[in-house]
Amino acid sequence: MARTTDKLDTSGEDLGTGRIETLSDGVFAIAMTLLVFDLKPAALPFGASEAVLQHALLAMLPEVLSVGLSFLILGIYWVAHQHQFRVIRRVDRTLLWINLALLVGIALIPVSARLLGEYGHYQTVIVLYGCNLIAVRLMLYVHWAYATGRYRLVDPWLSPESIAYLKRRILWGPVAYLGAIGLSFWDTRLSLLVYVLVHLQFILPSRREHIPAPRPVAGSSAL
Amino acid sequence: MARTTDKLDTSGEDLGTGRIETLSDGVFAIAMTLLVFDLKPAALPFGASEAVLQHALLAMLPEVLSVGLSFLILGIYWVAHQHQFRVIRRVDRTLLWINLALLVGIALIPVSARLLGEYGHYQTVIVLYGCNLIAVRLMLYVHWAYATGRYRLVDPWLSPESIAYLKRRILWGPVAYLGAIGLSFWDTRLSLLVYVLVHLQFILPSRREHIPAPRPVAGSSAL
Amino acid sequence: MARTTDKLDTSGEDLGTGRIETLSDGVFAIAMTLLVFDLKPAALPFGASEAVLQHALLAMLPEVLSVGLSFLILGIYWVAHQHQFRVIRRVDRTLLWINLALLVGIALIPVSARLLGEYGHYQTVIVLYGCNLIAVRLMLYVHWAYATGRYRLVDPWLSPESIAYLKRRILWGPVAYLGAIGLSFWDTRLSLLVYVLVHLQFILPSRREHIPAPRPVAGSSAL
Amino acid sequence: MARTTDKLDTSGEDLGTGRIETLSDGVFAIAMTLLVFDLKPAALPFGASEAVLQHALLAMLPEVLSVGLSFLILGIYWVAHQHQFRVIRRVDRTLLWINLALLVGIALIPVSARLLGEYGHYQTVIVLYGCNLIAVRLMLYVHWAYATGRYRLVDPWLSPESIAYLKRRILWGPVAYLGAIGLSFWDTRLSLLVYVLVHLQFILPSRREHIPAPRPVAGSSAL
Repeated sequence: MARTTDKLDTSGEDLGTGRIETLSDGVFAIAMTLLVFDLKPAALPFGASEAVLQHALLAMLPEVLSVGLSFLILGIYWVAHQHQFRVIRRVDRTLLWINLALLVGIALIPVSARLLGEYGHYQTVIVLYGCNLIAVRLMLYVHWAYATGRYRLVDPWLSPESIAYLKRRILWGPVAYLGAIGLSFWDTRLSLLVYVLVHLQFILPSRREHIPAPRPVAGSSAL
Repeated sequence: MARTTDKLDTSGEDLGTGRIETLSDGVFAIAMTLLVFDLKPAALPFGASEAVLQHALLAMLPEVLSVGLSFLILGIYWVAHQHQFRVIRRVDRTLLWINLALLVGIALIPVSARLLGEYGHYQTVIVLYGCNLIAVRLMLYVHWAYATGRYRLVDPWLSPESIAYLKRRILWGPVAYLGAIGLSFWDTRLSLLVYVLVHLQFILPSRREHIPAPRPVAGSSAL
Repeated sequence: MARTTDKLDTSGEDLGTGRIETLSDGVFAIAMTLLVFDLKPAALPFGASEAVLQHALLAMLPEVLSVGLSFLILGIYWVAHQHQFRVIRRVDRTLLWINLALLVGIALIPVSARLLGEYGHYQTVIVLYGCNLIAVRLMLYVHWAYATGRYRLVDPWLSPESIAYLKRRILWGPVAYLGAIGLSFWDTRLSLLVYVLVHLQFILPSRREHIPAPRPVAGSSAL
Repeated sequence: MARTTDKLDTSGEDLGTGRIETLSDGVFAIAMTLLVFDLKPAALPFGASEAVLQHALLAMLPEVLSVGLSFLILGIYWVAHQHQFRVIRRVDRTLLWINLALLVGIALIPVSARLLGEYGHYQTVIVLYGCNLIAVRLMLYVHWAYATGRYRLVDPWLSPESIAYLKRRILWGPVAYLGAIGLSFWDTRLSLLVYVLVHLQFILPSRREHIPAPRPVAGSSAL
């Protein structure tokens, strides 16, 4: 239905959400898989013992942790993307470009993760990783603010409280990331701890983090 | 229809299954293709004879076998994923995260396969490969147990026998994998044999391995 | 609709065609893109002149031709896959596995193309390339024969002539590929010529190569 | 609905647009992600200082700029592709092949971008990049001209003005690209400037660049 909607339900200049969701799911899926696929132990000398192999595998621990954290982050932003599109009904050209800018940030995460895994003890890398996350998060904010501004592309029955709540929730992220970047001037391991804690907290179930299911806004006769 | 369902049919906090299926199919497709794409013969010296090339290609046999086995395994879990989603009607946030954890395991299979192809004579690698398979299988179990628990996300007419049958079927896997890991302390080739036999058996047609087609549970007036 | 069909329209053990088409399109898209992405000129020495760069690019001509031919072949088999699914209504477990076996062959094409681009003057590589194509083509035949056998998974109004016509068309391929392999014992360039000509002919428009649009079989009262 | 349309709505030889859109979105998504994933700093010597790392990252600036420009271009052509399919209702075999030829050009963009990032000061590379863009743009023209010719595959209510307007818009591109190629004989930096300016202009909102929403052609009683 979605694709057909692209063509039939367009009022004025707007498009359905089918293809932007397909492209985004594609970029997320490829970023996730390439991220993991990048894990390669250093080449072993011929005739190496089990202990040498185990040592080579253990030496990959920083890469493994960086991949794990980054997969978690990609998962969080994929879930967030999907939650926004639960209530986004139409897409216009501006939203397409905001979404493409978001996808640049998503595609950069495996690049930043590779740096973090290999050079995670450098402050520069900690800062770059944080900047990547800030960029993704800000684009997520712009995406939501644009789509919901004057109810441009979303359901009319979405409550203003839901819109404002999600905005606050998203903006809390860059603050935490900036904090982590600040801590890196003191100790990069503290920054890594913040990156991990900030995102672990997203997996835990919470009643309030969902966009409320579509229902008429109280006091509104629309629909 | 599926995507539109994301937005219209949501009761309370639940989502449709469209995007989780698109993302999962993407990860499976990329893992399968990267797995195969990784096959590269060693560089030949300039002016090498046909015999030298043939030798280099034959030397890839372990990689080829590892890729073949791992493709088969990816296929099995793709089919299993699809079978679960035949009866899963809705997705909630918890299932999204269980599914993402499953996808980590799927994305790791080409990584484990690369290790197995190159270092398959090391016991450590045999154990890692088995651990990867156990992780995938356990997540598949958690996925099914969560979705069917109290008929949370599945069709109400699914019979309790079907649910229990698939649980047993899935849990049989980790047992076999643990057995293979145990055998690796004796002879790694026996473990490989178990990996192959366990999965070959999945391709053979069997009447009972399907989830029964949706029908009202006997004695139930639901529907 | 397709995905929902997975769950609602299943009669007995059969599934809808949504996910197998999504997975296949994914594998085709990734194989096509990785195939092209593999094109890399040899590293240039620092301060190399334009002439040196042009020479390095021209030296990629065999790779470029191999990629071009292989993209064409992937395109042909993607079109063929899509044409079969125009009339395939349902999918059962056996067809899933036939399709997965077909996808192995598809995923191998970039691997064979890489060999052909780099070592195309070796007869061994010409033979391997041909074997890959034969495998894909035979799986395409098995796919069609299984789906149409006793009208197992296809529209009942498909005429027996259409079924037999497509079978003949598909089987003509392995014959040509075997011929090319035979010629390689004489001159590998002749084999390459056959590979090119066989596939170029597929792009040319032809009335008969389409599966006739669904219509009731003459003399049949079914539907 | 789209996939089902493949089978039910086919009049004569035509197909629905579902799978061609899925394949194209896949190629675009993979090209975008691989493009970005290719960003890798040179390996650092063991124990390198922060300054050395920062220097290595800054040395990637040409690659980063090339990736940024090329992502923008992929985004532009993805948006253009989607806009054409807003009014393309059916697909025939010829359009499938035109679309596949377009996808070759799309898949080549990360390859050209890698050349541009590494060897952007060579005129040869500037010319190749321009040729890639010209090829994509011409295929986009052929795609539109074929689909709209005699209203072969598009909505009958599309106005002839819209068709001609989009043709002119597309053809303007190769002219600009040829200009950039011409300038490269003088100074390759001017060509790069043209590449950037031509595409930046595409992101800016403009009322006229949309295909007007479907509505009956004035003076026509069709529909």
